[in-house]
Amino acid sequence: MERPIILGVIGGEVPPESAVGLAEEVGRLAALQGAVVICGGLGGVMEAVCKGARSVGGTTIGVLPSSDRTTANPHVSLPIVTAMSTARNAIIVRTAEALIAIDGAYGTLTEIAYALDLKHKVFLLQSWPLDRMTVNPDLYEHVPNPKVAVERALAYARSNRG
Amino acid sequence: MERPIILGVIGGEVPPESAVGLAEEVGRLAALQGAVVICGGLGGVMEAVCKGARSVGGTTIGVLPSSDRTTANPHVSLPIVTAMSTARNAIIVRTAEALIAIDGAYGTLTEIAYALDLKHKVFLLQSWPLDRMTVNPDLYEHVPNPKVAVERALAYARSNRG
Amino acid sequence: MERPIILGVIGGEVPPESAVGLAEEVGRLAALQGAVVICGGLGGVMEAVCKGARSVGGTTIGVLPSSDRTTANPHVSLPIVTAMSTARNAIIVRTAEALIAIDGAYGTLTEIAYALDLKHKVFLLQSWPLDRMTVNPDLYEHVPNPKVAVERALAYARSNRG
Amino acid sequence: MERPIILGVIGGEVPPESAVGLAEEVGRLAALQGAVVICGGLGGVMEAVCKGARSVGGTTIGVLPSSDRTTANPHVSLPIVTAMSTARNAIIVRTAEALIAIDGAYGTLTEIAYALDLKHKVFLLQSWPLDRMTVNPDLYEHVPNPKVAVERALAYARSNRG
Repeated sequence: MERPIILGVIGGEVPPESAVGLAEEVGRLAALQGAVVICGGLGGVMEAVCKGARSVGGTTIGVLPSSDRTTANPHVSLPIVTAMSTARNAIIVRTAEALIAIDGAYGTLTEIAYALDLKHKVFLLQSWPLDRMTVNPDLYEHVPNPKVAVERALAYARSNRG
Repeated sequence: MERPIILGVIGGEVPPESAVGLAEEVGRLAALQGAVVICGGLGGVMEAVCKGARSVGGTTIGVLPSSDRTTANPHVSLPIVTAMSTARNAIIVRTAEALIAIDGAYGTLTEIAYALDLKHKVFLLQSWPLDRMTVNPDLYEHVPNPKVAVERALAYARSNRG
Repeated sequence: MERPIILGVIGGEVPPESAVGLAEEVGRLAALQGAVVICGGLGGVMEAVCKGARSVGGTTIGVLPSSDRTTANPHVSLPIVTAMSTARNAIIVRTAEALIAIDGAYGTLTEIAYALDLKHKVFLLQSWPLDRMTVNPDLYEHVPNPKVAVERALAYARSNRG
Repeated sequence: MERPIILGVIGGEVPPESAVGLAEEVGRLAALQGAVVICGGLGGVMEAVCKGARSVGGTTIGVLPSSDRTTANPHVSLPIVTAMSTARNAIIVRTAEALIAIDGAYGTLTEIAYALDLKHKVFLLQSWPLDRMTVNPDLYEHVPNPKVAVERALAYARSNRG
């Protein structure tokens, strides 16, 4: 069995409208490439990326912070019930073979920082301005649109499989 | 979208040969019914149930204790990387909509106890002798074989979806 | 610096009156011996053991399941806020250098099973009847009263320090 | 019982020499004010802050990422053994009633971001340049030295107790 690539998509619950569109397109393109999407399973960017992936028959994993399965957005196909609140952010980052951040607030910043700590590269789409910080430039890449985001992220994941 | 039922299968890493056969058959029958299998992702019962499910094209989620994706057995299609050691046992139990225990040592007993604590019913196949303990008999059922185990567990999961 | 021994005391939130008295006495005797008590930080056995320890000036650590510090019972001197629900049970067991179980329901059984899995000995005071199960008898000991429980548990902790 | 204030001190394992001195002084001043220090329990800033606190008889809690108690630095008086890797960062932040960041790399950034996400203020001593990011300025304060860091952090903690 060749395992599908698991692509993490992180971002906030109350994104601007533009980010919702980006997330949906990221989900759609990732699923068309055969990737499984993993995210936090709730609303906003998380819901949009799941919606996009499901629209073309993709699989979507939602790693939920609460103990309540019904908090998953309707486009999560596989809800993982952690009851570990935002400590679940670490699980999303570790499970993802590549990570795309779209918009996002402080919760997303925990995930970006976990990725940097693990030396996992993050692809940033209208997200945190890491270029203003003292972050190793090998560890992130600002991407201009969903197409490039998915291409670059999946290439990164494949290169790590060797 | 109708979500597939997520069936948890718990059991030890060094089971007797009979338990391996039971686990493989449980996995096969569950996948034939359209259920997704979730387990701890390692060897023994966990590997056998994944092998059975994959043999008929099923999806298998392995919730790994370590931070190393490559510890997943080869029949895990979706490895979840927790790096939380055996605290991940609670995630397996909470995520599963029904739980079948096959054989199993003390790790499996943590999972059975988590299920009892959540008032989730456990279906026991050559596993811990709960009838010798002061456990509410509504919370467990000894099942004679894989066929009954899967039938009873899936019926339980469906009844909880209402 | 010689670190104080950290003694774990586990047990339920709705114990019989007899267990409350046992827990308070265990806390008192442990603190008099210089041990720090760790527990789940809530009511019942957890509150009683903290009350006993604090009555003689001891230190009590309460590892809380929620994100709310104010859920700690009033006799917890150091609340640890996990927001990880019952996955925090694993932390209590791993942190304790010896473990006394008093009464207890299914949550306590998760903790006993975690201890057995780690090959940590559990001292049982009116708690789960492990002698009816297929548990390695080296891993548990039924103790008759708080005095023996604390003596045996602290001796065990000291012997592990070597 | 009046609970002592629990002061979180976060920072990296391989700090510059200047940060080691700052951390030791923060620990000393915090303990002199009666605060208990909580940190990640390992080396670098974590060890220095514990050393400072212990030098004046303070209590130091080290929330360890591994399952091995002996990884605690020698100045941790109470090691908490999580076996949850860097997911334990969330526990440090939630448990702390105020947070001082000293130097620090990506792990420290996860903790800062968790604090921001919880609307907990962070006091920054030669740490991440949050003023270059789009962070709410009410949520952080750059402090010039250990004395001001401890004063401001403890005042913040006291004001939250009401």
